[in-house]
Amino acid sequence: MLIVMNHTATQSDVDAVARVVTEMGYTAAPIPGSERTAIGVLGNHGYVDDSKILELPGVQRVIHVSKPYKLVSRDFHPENTIVDVAGVRVGHGCRPVMVAGPCAVEGEEQIVKTALFVKKAGADMLRGGAFKPRTGPHTFQGMREEGLKLLALAGKESGLPIVTEVMSPDNVGLVAEYTDLMQVGARNMQNFDLLRELGRIRKPVLLKRGMSATIEEFLAAAEYILAEGNEQVILCERGIRTYETATRNTLDLAVVPLIKEMSHLPIMVDPSHATGKRSLVPPMTLAALMAGAHGVLVEVHPEPEKALSDGPQSLTFPGFDQLMADVRRLNGFLGF
Amino acid sequence: MLIVMNHTATQSDVDAVARVVTEMGYTAAPIPGSERTAIGVLGNHGYVDDSKILELPGVQRVIHVSKPYKLVSRDFHPENTIVDVAGVRVGHGCRPVMVAGPCAVEGEEQIVKTALFVKKAGADMLRGGAFKPRTGPHTFQGMREEGLKLLALAGKESGLPIVTEVMSPDNVGLVAEYTDLMQVGARNMQNFDLLRELGRIRKPVLLKRGMSATIEEFLAAAEYILAEGNEQVILCERGIRTYETATRNTLDLAVVPLIKEMSHLPIMVDPSHATGKRSLVPPMTLAALMAGAHGVLVEVHPEPEKALSDGPQSLTFPGFDQLMADVRRLNGFLGF
Amino acid sequence: MLIVMNHTATQSDVDAVARVVTEMGYTAAPIPGSERTAIGVLGNHGYVDDSKILELPGVQRVIHVSKPYKLVSRDFHPENTIVDVAGVRVGHGCRPVMVAGPCAVEGEEQIVKTALFVKKAGADMLRGGAFKPRTGPHTFQGMREEGLKLLALAGKESGLPIVTEVMSPDNVGLVAEYTDLMQVGARNMQNFDLLRELGRIRKPVLLKRGMSATIEEFLAAAEYILAEGNEQVILCERGIRTYETATRNTLDLAVVPLIKEMSHLPIMVDPSHATGKRSLVPPMTLAALMAGAHGVLVEVHPEPEKALSDGPQSLTFPGFDQLMADVRRLNGFLGF
Amino acid sequence: MLIVMNHTATQSDVDAVARVVTEMGYTAAPIPGSERTAIGVLGNHGYVDDSKILELPGVQRVIHVSKPYKLVSRDFHPENTIVDVAGVRVGHGCRPVMVAGPCAVEGEEQIVKTALFVKKAGADMLRGGAFKPRTGPHTFQGMREEGLKLLALAGKESGLPIVTEVMSPDNVGLVAEYTDLMQVGARNMQNFDLLRELGRIRKPVLLKRGMSATIEEFLAAAEYILAEGNEQVILCERGIRTYETATRNTLDLAVVPLIKEMSHLPIMVDPSHATGKRSLVPPMTLAALMAGAHGVLVEVHPEPEKALSDGPQSLTFPGFDQLMADVRRLNGFLGF
Repeated sequence: MLIVMNHTATQSDVDAVARVVTEMGYTAAPIPGSERTAIGVLGNHGYVDDSKILELPGVQRVIHVSKPYKLVSRDFHPENTIVDVAGVRVGHGCRPVMVAGPCAVEGEEQIVKTALFVKKAGADMLRGGAFKPRTGPHTFQGMREEGLKLLALAGKESGLPIVTEVMSPDNVGLVAEYTDLMQVGARNMQNFDLLRELGRIRKPVLLKRGMSATIEEFLAAAEYILAEGNEQVILCERGIRTYETATRNTLDLAVVPLIKEMSHLPIMVDPSHATGKRSLVPPMTLAALMAGAHGVLVEVHPEPEKALSDGPQSLTFPGFDQLMADVRRLNGFLGF
Repeated sequence: MLIVMNHTATQSDVDAVARVVTEMGYTAAPIPGSERTAIGVLGNHGYVDDSKILELPGVQRVIHVSKPYKLVSRDFHPENTIVDVAGVRVGHGCRPVMVAGPCAVEGEEQIVKTALFVKKAGADMLRGGAFKPRTGPHTFQGMREEGLKLLALAGKESGLPIVTEVMSPDNVGLVAEYTDLMQVGARNMQNFDLLRELGRIRKPVLLKRGMSATIEEFLAAAEYILAEGNEQVILCERGIRTYETATRNTLDLAVVPLIKEMSHLPIMVDPSHATGKRSLVPPMTLAALMAGAHGVLVEVHPEPEKALSDGPQSLTFPGFDQLMADVRRLNGFLGF
Repeated sequence: MLIVMNHTATQSDVDAVARVVTEMGYTAAPIPGSERTAIGVLGNHGYVDDSKILELPGVQRVIHVSKPYKLVSRDFHPENTIVDVAGVRVGHGCRPVMVAGPCAVEGEEQIVKTALFVKKAGADMLRGGAFKPRTGPHTFQGMREEGLKLLALAGKESGLPIVTEVMSPDNVGLVAEYTDLMQVGARNMQNFDLLRELGRIRKPVLLKRGMSATIEEFLAAAEYILAEGNEQVILCERGIRTYETATRNTLDLAVVPLIKEMSHLPIMVDPSHATGKRSLVPPMTLAALMAGAHGVLVEVHPEPEKALSDGPQSLTFPGFDQLMADVRRLNGFLGF
Repeated sequence: MLIVMNHTATQSDVDAVARVVTEMGYTAAPIPGSERTAIGVLGNHGYVDDSKILELPGVQRVIHVSKPYKLVSRDFHPENTIVDVAGVRVGHGCRPVMVAGPCAVEGEEQIVKTALFVKKAGADMLRGGAFKPRTGPHTFQGMREEGLKLLALAGKESGLPIVTEVMSPDNVGLVAEYTDLMQVGARNMQNFDLLRELGRIRKPVLLKRGMSATIEEFLAAAEYILAEGNEQVILCERGIRTYETATRNTLDLAVVPLIKEMSHLPIMVDPSHATGKRSLVPPMTLAALMAGAHGVLVEVHPEPEKALSDGPQSLTFPGFDQLMADVRRLNGFLGF
């Protein structure tokens, strides 16, 4: 931690800060400069709460060198983590996985038909929402437990592992019965009770980046899960909220190589929610793989024009088939 | 709803769209233009899912005229809602309320002392966090139920109604036992299970705007609570996330008069979280009242430099006393 | 400047960094920590280019303590600057000024009529655009020199000083002939050739904050003007671009007290461009004054519904009259 | 254009709006709905100024169907534009071009050496800044005309076309003497005098997206150039400003396929400015090409640690060589 003093701070201000730092159990190392003094803080293990410092006269600001996470950091855990989802391996060195399926489970025929199709086309996992977070209360909110059962059925028929969202800590047990990879949606990235609960189970977790979460907050959210003992976490970039409204969100693809530098956890990409537009999903899927993503989630629906949610961003069956052909070629090029 | 066709859409594209609109139970009103055709959709009651339309050939985009909320809208409920918090009235025509207290309950002496002080200084309610959402798992997470008990004690000693945050649907009952106004924090604005649960109780709710929530999403979140039968909702602007990092968030004060136009619900402002900086809290408190806010929440701590969270944005006791003197003068000027 | 090393950096990495710092003419002060080493850089006068450092092995990041500006900073120039606009004084201790007028000069009758009206209502200066920056080329671009002449005429008839925008360095001389306060629009905040040119004249400048400029960039832009010798600069907050589209921009009112802490230059507010909505202009004008703004610019038009630009955010004559009555009362309350 | 009335608007409000629309020379087509009336506006050629409408009683909002651009739009000009830069063709069907060079020209040896190296490594054009826009006035501002001469020399020695930035309308002639592709930087995207001037010359233009420009504003800025008669415009995505600070900007790669749908102009990507971090440049270069970019600009410097600007994001010579090997392989995969 570095404490930056005002240009006009006096020596006695500097001394007072040094005294408080010492009281906190750390060592203070004043660095006099030509314009102002800064004070290095030594001896801290991890993040230091800066409240007491910021109160003191003459202090301009405090700069943190430590981060609010450690377990997820490559700095402290250099080896790559491979997450195993019912036998499908996700992470460094593994062939990137393709997760496909409808936004929401709408009925048996829809989900089973989709599962069989995406399996045949080459998908590695089946996605589908049973609990749906929706902006307003007057729209379709998901089939809930009935949806979970249909998902499990579709998983069994197709042989694909199942990915679905869990929205509430008290549903973790229920959802875990039916699914192989527990998804935390963007709106719940900082639902800390949910994260802690997921840290206590033995199922892998797919953690989506919050709509306006920084990378630091994203990794700190994953830290909640690891801190409870579950290291099987896959991160997922799904677009962030910016001033631009031409796409549903702004896909922040540069975080893929960046997170691979910062963390040992696998990172996937969801171009469907990121762009909100079907025609942009295939190019951004391929771009994500090229940027080094460990997998991609895409929405596929037998009849997008009849979908109860997210139709405009869902691929049709022929569209997904075509995309998978391109993905296979690209994987070959990339050596998988 | 208005459907905008591409410049190159054919008449048969237009006819196909009109057919689907009719199948959906609405009336299609084509509006031919010099450059492109648009198609008005008549007869809908509320929001229409546009997925089916966006799929059709020749469709460029769909523009919604209806909103994802109705119960919170002034359009459908012109009279102002007054929320009653244990006898303290909040809303149009009432003297703006001042809610004060520490970020987190840290112990009996701290909270009781603060309660008695802010009461004496003129505050109308006591705030304090028992359950604290924190970015990383390695910092103070609140005193939980013990904190609620201390809050209730402080409320009793001072005679002030209590405001505290509830983070999880299964804690709603517990928190409701001890508190008068149930706060939903920014991170949980779209925790829909929590909102629904709060809709089913008979306590007023303080709903904070999400860090990157639009006004439309903010009102739609309140709609979840009203839709379950609880109309006692106070909205609260607490700063939004933008590119600017000189302040903790960007206080979007213009939403105060804007929300008063759009909704009948009261709107308060939290300048402590919005700015993150003690010296900015008094001017922004006064500015918020001048902009028409129905109340302001500020953080006050007996010793901010020892606070376990948010010390830098907490007012000291003398600072709060001074602010309340200014607030009283301003209220007089404003006719309260 | 502080150089933060990686957790895994070796002693020889640290030594190499210290060597480069010394070569740059500064002093290196290593601060060993339990998790990583940081290196303080002493002896720099102002901002140091960090490129050379960031290249070195083991360096994680560089933290700047100095700022890219100095002349505008209160740290180095504690006394408040008062800007004199043809006799109207703007800044600390002066009655806040009201600047009013149409977005664009559209003709003699419009501008003279408006000037006489706003003067009578109590305005201190007349604003009006002769050169208009517009998003697309197919809309009204301003009356240019003819507009300047009409502005000067209106100024003469009403006795009000004139504020108008200059868009290009080669127009600075022309605009300066006709105007008292040279406005730099948000789009040109970083038009450095323009800023330098304005630094060389002896007229006061009104510098609007760029649409997505940080406070640091805003002050650094003003530094360009001061660095050329012109200290008569008024800053102006006019709303920033965020994800929220319910208002035209997001008025960042907390920068008013913040900039007053950081800089000695006066700061004004433009609620018309910030909100884009007439009904929000009066409450945000009053809130701006309450937050401590040294002045407010509002758009006023005799017939907003016929305005060639920005009609929806322009006040009518009666609307402005009412606002000025409220402003006078508030100024009285504030002691002016 | 669609005019949406308030829920409470009366029939006479609707009639009044229709009357104004008619006076403006258009046709009004009222669309009564169950909750509110909307009014279609027919017969407009291009964008309509909505000021007059928004003034009228009962009007809630106005929705534009037309766009502020036309010449750049694929809707009106379906064929792809190929831009010819001194013999190097950029656009649909052409092999993507690689533009490389230092951020700033710093001296003869630096620029000539870089030119010869990047040429040998396979680059198609040489970039380098002679006029440098910098946040603060106290840093290196470029070698100006001397830099242009060195660029021209380096271009001649290497046989590479030259790309450099022009910052001011009065420098257009000067820069055009020495360069093959005139770059407009992000800060100047809405410097309309500059855009108009570039529309009048017969050199191709590289227009960078503004830091917080929407796609609509980006295309409208290009429209200024085309409107003056110059159709040789290449667009360039270079990252936008968002709340995320882990990267210098947020690379909005999804605009590549999106702009290809909306416009016939070529679109390039600048991953150096977008990410600000050397290690992210190669993966994002490849991802950009995979997303369909018509070219990529990267910063290359013989000794990045000694660069006068942007060192941390500049590739070294060996780094660029490696990237070009990967680019060649990828181009082969893509069929070029």
